[in-house]
Amino acid sequence: MTNGDIFVGEMIGTAILVLFGAGVCAAVTLRFSKARASGWIVIAFGWGFGVLAGAYTAAPLSGGVINPAVTFGLAVDTGVWSKVWVYLLGQITGAMIGAVLCYLVYYAQFAANVRKTGTTEGTADEPVPTLGIFSTVPEIRNPIANLVTEILATIALVLPILALVGQDRHVEGVGIGLIPGGGGIYGSGIAILLVSLLVVGIGLSLGGPTGYAINPARDLGPRIIHAILPIPNKGTSDWGYSWIPVVGPLIGGLLGGVIYNAAF
Amino acid sequence: MTNGDIFVGEMIGTAILVLFGAGVCAAVTLRFSKARASGWIVIAFGWGFGVLAGAYTAAPLSGGVINPAVTFGLAVDTGVWSKVWVYLLGQITGAMIGAVLCYLVYYAQFAANVRKTGTTEGTADEPVPTLGIFSTVPEIRNPIANLVTEILATIALVLPILALVGQDRHVEGVGIGLIPGGGGIYGSGIAILLVSLLVVGIGLSLGGPTGYAINPARDLGPRIIHAILPIPNKGTSDWGYSWIPVVGPLIGGLLGGVIYNAAF
Amino acid sequence: MTNGDIFVGEMIGTAILVLFGAGVCAAVTLRFSKARASGWIVIAFGWGFGVLAGAYTAAPLSGGVINPAVTFGLAVDTGVWSKVWVYLLGQITGAMIGAVLCYLVYYAQFAANVRKTGTTEGTADEPVPTLGIFSTVPEIRNPIANLVTEILATIALVLPILALVGQDRHVEGVGIGLIPGGGGIYGSGIAILLVSLLVVGIGLSLGGPTGYAINPARDLGPRIIHAILPIPNKGTSDWGYSWIPVVGPLIGGLLGGVIYNAAF
Amino acid sequence: MTNGDIFVGEMIGTAILVLFGAGVCAAVTLRFSKARASGWIVIAFGWGFGVLAGAYTAAPLSGGVINPAVTFGLAVDTGVWSKVWVYLLGQITGAMIGAVLCYLVYYAQFAANVRKTGTTEGTADEPVPTLGIFSTVPEIRNPIANLVTEILATIALVLPILALVGQDRHVEGVGIGLIPGGGGIYGSGIAILLVSLLVVGIGLSLGGPTGYAINPARDLGPRIIHAILPIPNKGTSDWGYSWIPVVGPLIGGLLGGVIYNAAF
Repeated sequence: MTNGDIFVGEMIGTAILVLFGAGVCAAVTLRFSKARASGWIVIAFGWGFGVLAGAYTAAPLSGGVINPAVTFGLAVDTGVWSKVWVYLLGQITGAMIGAVLCYLVYYAQFAANVRKTGTTEGTADEPVPTLGIFSTVPEIRNPIANLVTEILATIALVLPILALVGQDRHVEGVGIGLIPGGGGIYGSGIAILLVSLLVVGIGLSLGGPTGYAINPARDLGPRIIHAILPIPNKGTSDWGYSWIPVVGPLIGGLLGGVIYNAAF
Repeated sequence: MTNGDIFVGEMIGTAILVLFGAGVCAAVTLRFSKARASGWIVIAFGWGFGVLAGAYTAAPLSGGVINPAVTFGLAVDTGVWSKVWVYLLGQITGAMIGAVLCYLVYYAQFAANVRKTGTTEGTADEPVPTLGIFSTVPEIRNPIANLVTEILATIALVLPILALVGQDRHVEGVGIGLIPGGGGIYGSGIAILLVSLLVVGIGLSLGGPTGYAINPARDLGPRIIHAILPIPNKGTSDWGYSWIPVVGPLIGGLLGGVIYNAAF
Repeated sequence: MTNGDIFVGEMIGTAILVLFGAGVCAAVTLRFSKARASGWIVIAFGWGFGVLAGAYTAAPLSGGVINPAVTFGLAVDTGVWSKVWVYLLGQITGAMIGAVLCYLVYYAQFAANVRKTGTTEGTADEPVPTLGIFSTVPEIRNPIANLVTEILATIALVLPILALVGQDRHVEGVGIGLIPGGGGIYGSGIAILLVSLLVVGIGLSLGGPTGYAINPARDLGPRIIHAILPIPNKGTSDWGYSWIPVVGPLIGGLLGGVIYNAAF
Repeated sequence: MTNGDIFVGEMIGTAILVLFGAGVCAAVTLRFSKARASGWIVIAFGWGFGVLAGAYTAAPLSGGVINPAVTFGLAVDTGVWSKVWVYLLGQITGAMIGAVLCYLVYYAQFAANVRKTGTTEGTADEPVPTLGIFSTVPEIRNPIANLVTEILATIALVLPILALVGQDRHVEGVGIGLIPGGGGIYGSGIAILLVSLLVVGIGLSLGGPTGYAINPARDLGPRIIHAILPIPNKGTSDWGYSWIPVVGPLIGGLLGGVIYNAAF
């Protein structure tokens, strides 16, 4: 894989991930969406199948990592750090692009995020806060607890991925994706499907407190875009919280790699 | 593949797709359905598994494309346009057949789409509009925004498909399906399963604004049938909107092919 | 496969299918169940994963058909009718066993299906009808429409199955299951998974009018058991309707085989 | 596999299983969780994908059994009992660790499980009982019926697993997991995915009466932790019921092995 392939693959893959992930949050949150208030099961499957869509797309170019925390875990495991910066650059760029694409898909819904003429505050017709569509917002603001949640949820992502792809990965260097002609779980093309369902599970089980960033690019990139976009009544971009969904997943990714190396 | 095989395969496959897809909309929409008001998760999985059912059925005959937008994307990628018309003919014919089959499955429910004797307008017993069962209806009518939504959602379908099936497809020409004896993701028979879950994801994440046609045949064919069938209180067939779910997905399919060729 | 293996395999497999299927209907229907009123998505996945559980269990012994309609479709396709009676005998026996097992799993809930002391008719504490747990009940009673629904839903089951297992099946005779060392979709063990998801899709999309028997054994066996078991307030076993979910699926299975032979 | 590998694999795998499983119960139960009251479908998929996460992680070390009942079933089938104690030790240790991890992930939510200042008993702001997050609680307390439910639900888990992994398992001894280079359903890496979906199905269909322990370690380990942790308003740890979700699944596992040996 050339640096160019890795950058383009991760950029496109992460853009698709965030398009699906921010998209499902828009679908459930915004008024005039057919999926409004359709529940947590929709959120979790939407993000999980966003991983499926993004990682399978990126796989031929970059192995389909699309998450700096997983990149860190793989780097700890393999000891190969030289390409990490390319992965991260592609991921953060892609995440910003994906957030813009989500905005465009839901353009009319965002534009309609205003109070209906003649209605008053507190009715069903009031605008909704929009940050939660782009980035995570904790239910209870408690930096230590939020950080611990993100660290543990990310370990629960990275450790199974490392165990899953196992030695096949070492052959090909960094990358978890679809390897044509590869043996075992790779050759059957099922690895990314399993990671997608793993992400559905993390969402269902561990997403309650903080909204499960478990991916720094997925949180930081869209937050930057949220701060820029001219969304009516968009509310705060909450920069005070923004370090937790970056630092937590990175720590979790590193710890996942360390635990894997120690135990396996 | 002969032209006859392609036509029959795409016709049967698209008929099954629309039977499931229109079927799940009928299930959730119509009175006297056990699945009434069962939510967006049901819609998205119903359509997604309709892709699974239709594409696996069509696969041995035509490769299981069952979508003109995907056909366009594959043609751009492979440069083979000579069979596109056969695919499209089979798809639009099948979509009309599927809509009729849905009508037959829900015949008693459609027939009961009348006001109960003695009730008055505005009660829970009033007839429901039926176009949304057959074709897409936007939540906010905004031609540019609706078109952009359909284009982007279709790119999010076609680009992952092209990346997924990759070079294996080139060997066999047009077609994304199950190839006995094929290597990689084909040989394990998993390709269509992944596309089905991708469609579930698109529905969950990107279906909020327009109901995600992402397939011109799936929208146009059933709309024609809706205009013809003698459904009580069926409401408008909304021909003014009908070009968007045709043109949008076709543009999206073409752009998906162009992006794939440029980046991969 | 010996006749004894086929009988035992189909009996155990169909028992598990009905245990899961009737079980999920009990889970959603009965009072004092944690899953009460959890919706159509639960019903459809419960039945679908019942196919997964039952068919994978039966697969090593009988190929995992567990449905007389699919047995008919396979017989039409392969022209092999000599073992059909063994399949059917195992299936109907297993379906009755599965219904008894469901009764035992939900014994305390069935026993509690009485009016609470001191409450009056029409409250939330009234007993619920129980036939719908064991067998299908149409929402609108219309024999022709109900029959058409069951025929079409069964074709939508059998035709994809035949297309899916394709020529691999011919090598091994009747049976759709897991064939160790088999090629294509068999060798990867994925065939039954795909059929399971197909059944989820049929439930979501085509189950609204009649509750999708699509399997004569699954409906008739439990109905016999429902008539026998001493369930409080069990209500009618509705023998007047019982022929439709038997005849409809059998016609559908035959037509599925005929269409497959004509088109593929 | 060394005893050390088995212990570590089962410990990590069961910890992840319980983290996801207890996590999803916390997500649905606790106030200030984004997934609060999101329904039975969320519970069932959360536990099922917990099996996916835990068993794939444990697979390279121990075969990924992570359930004493399945361990018993495999031991009956293979006749190999010498390593059972190592499996069980790892599983119960891991289950306790997983319960602590769940507590940490939902730390702020548990800490907030108090009555809001100024509110009175009986309002929406009252604390919730927490045992159901960690261990199973029957809806109707009836020891015989509860025991029968757990036995049958566990047979419905163990028998399909034994049929699924079949003779491949005998080659490798105890263990159901991912075997690199293994043939059939192993080689494709799909075995654990199928077991995960099976567990989703058991939850949907058979979980209504008792909450489906079907795994002694999953119930006993977290119950011990529940008794120890300083959770506000945690309520009883209900030791009077605790033997049923241990004894029932063990009997079910043994019977599953016996039925498999008799029939297959």
